[in-house]
Amino acid sequence: MSLGMRQGRLQTDPLPSCNEGPSKAAILCFLQEATTEGDAAFVPPLDRVAVFDNDGTLCAEKPLYLQGIFALDRVKTLIAQHPEWREHQPFQSILEGDLAGVYAGGLKTILELLVATHGGNTSEEFDQIVLDWIASARHPSTGRPDTETVYQPLLELLDTLQSYGFRNHIDSGGGIESMPAWAEGVYGIPPEQVIGSSNETRFEIRDGRPVLVRLPQVDLVHDHEGKPEGIHRFIGRRPLLAGGNSDGDLQMQQWTAAGDGPRFLGLAHPTDAEREWAYDRESPIGRLDRAPDEAQAQGWTVVDMAREWQAVYPWEASS
Amino acid sequence: MSLGMRQGRLQTDPLPSCNEGPSKAAILCFLQEATTEGDAAFVPPLDRVAVFDNDGTLCAEKPLYLQGIFALDRVKTLIAQHPEWREHQPFQSILEGDLAGVYAGGLKTILELLVATHGGNTSEEFDQIVLDWIASARHPSTGRPDTETVYQPLLELLDTLQSYGFRNHIDSGGGIESMPAWAEGVYGIPPEQVIGSSNETRFEIRDGRPVLVRLPQVDLVHDHEGKPEGIHRFIGRRPLLAGGNSDGDLQMQQWTAAGDGPRFLGLAHPTDAEREWAYDRESPIGRLDRAPDEAQAQGWTVVDMAREWQAVYPWEASS
Repeated sequence: MSLGMRQGRLQTDPLPSCNEGPSKAAILCFLQEATTEGDAAFVPPLDRVAVFDNDGTLCAEKPLYLQGIFALDRVKTLIAQHPEWREHQPFQSILEGDLAGVYAGGLKTILELLVATHGGNTSEEFDQIVLDWIASARHPSTGRPDTETVYQPLLELLDTLQSYGFRNHIDSGGGIESMPAWAEGVYGIPPEQVIGSSNETRFEIRDGRPVLVRLPQVDLVHDHEGKPEGIHRFIGRRPLLAGGNSDGDLQMQQWTAAGDGPRFLGLAHPTDAEREWAYDRESPIGRLDRAPDEAQAQGWTVVDMAREWQAVYPWEASS
Repeated sequence: MSLGMRQGRLQTDPLPSCNEGPSKAAILCFLQEATTEGDAAFVPPLDRVAVFDNDGTLCAEKPLYLQGIFALDRVKTLIAQHPEWREHQPFQSILEGDLAGVYAGGLKTILELLVATHGGNTSEEFDQIVLDWIASARHPSTGRPDTETVYQPLLELLDTLQSYGFRNHIDSGGGIESMPAWAEGVYGIPPEQVIGSSNETRFEIRDGRPVLVRLPQVDLVHDHEGKPEGIHRFIGRRPLLAGGNSDGDLQMQQWTAAGDGPRFLGLAHPTDAEREWAYDRESPIGRLDRAPDEAQAQGWTVVDMAREWQAVYPWEASS
């Protein structure tokens, strides 16, 4: 099918921040076929489900993924109430600005950090904390608000998917607790379409008013095998499209690819040392080994960010 | 605001199976105000979230709730592979058709039953088992397909809510595993809007193909306090409307009611011994004590099914 067939929809470029190239052609062709009645690849609207990893896929994950930046800022705010943290890791490293020390403990340390900084409040108090933080937080490298350090081509893709009748979901390896408060404004993805690790809550009546108290326990970790498991539990149907950037997204992509009919698998490859970062085989929170190899073997779409993106961040976009 | 204000929408009765009366007036007035721009009670579309319990709220739960009927039928199918079940409860009672014996063990027994009958297969195999079962299953009392033993007034309400821009969710105390395969066709509620207890799954590559294997572990129980906790985790925003029928729904309704501005709380009261069932203070799987008392104290809408429903089941509806 030629890309010119649906002129009405494609009169204006839906992805102006993507250069013409293999990735742009592949996604637009896929969308056109999946949404054209009568096409062999046509998919009914209810099954048009797209899932995206967040950090490194929809937004920058260097020098640290967003949830991590939030957790670090929370440590600095809460240290007055927790002087004992000064003697323990990863808090010590955080207070000294030593990110390598934070990463050294691996996922276990990150989870301890999330538990320590994300528990105790009611859900309403916590939402307010996140909103207050978002209003003033600045990304450590760009100096821009963290909510702007997101990939412009992906914002355009999310919009395009929605216009083609897709429901977009985030399936994040990190905690999602700080996300619902802003993901809707930034990505247009409502909280019910955000999946990820989260603190357990306990329903209580406090002073005659029902509240959900956030407990210092993380109730699931959505990464690697946990991603398709979470998709099955939260969405209940297999995605048609899955976008990721690391080995933590591989199983989500394998699960998506194994469905009947055409599926779209996209992998962001950070190749742009000048405008963003270039890294290979290792990300801030995990490996990038198996995913790129499988993407190449299976013919998934690997996006060369340096070559294929006309703009990386919203403030660089021409429109 | 008078109910005649939006003639365009209300020219035809949106709830023909409800008699004119306090419940019908209350819900139509609520919907009109919540969706009229400029009204003090106006709610933006994204916040129009409705949650419903399933058994006893959207469909009959006597003589047994739907998941239970499925589990019983599975025991009869699987007994050839599990002869040891003949010596143990609740299997013995099931095989003897003794429902009282099944209930005697309480929620713990029901969960054991779900684990035994709902684990082991891959998610795809299980979906097919459910679809095959649904195609032939008959409700033990009405003799009709189980998917028809649903409340016609609630089907009309779900449609009406959707036409007013609401997103309907099921928040079920029972397991939800057999639900996604049919809830979409019956209720128009897609799997991503169904919350409930479910078996854990494990991602595996089997014969080169990724599968999700259903484990013999139930990973959460959504009842009582678990309902608002599940709503927070799966939906991420407070509902505007909550419908239930038992004490297991009370906390979900309290959580809904505690939000800012007007909320709608509805409680189905089974008073119709002739067309359905009449029971009070005790349901097949729990108590009906605190919910009716709180509903009365708080002025929630209690639906007298005998008096207020013109039709109970779809086959009784006039249209």
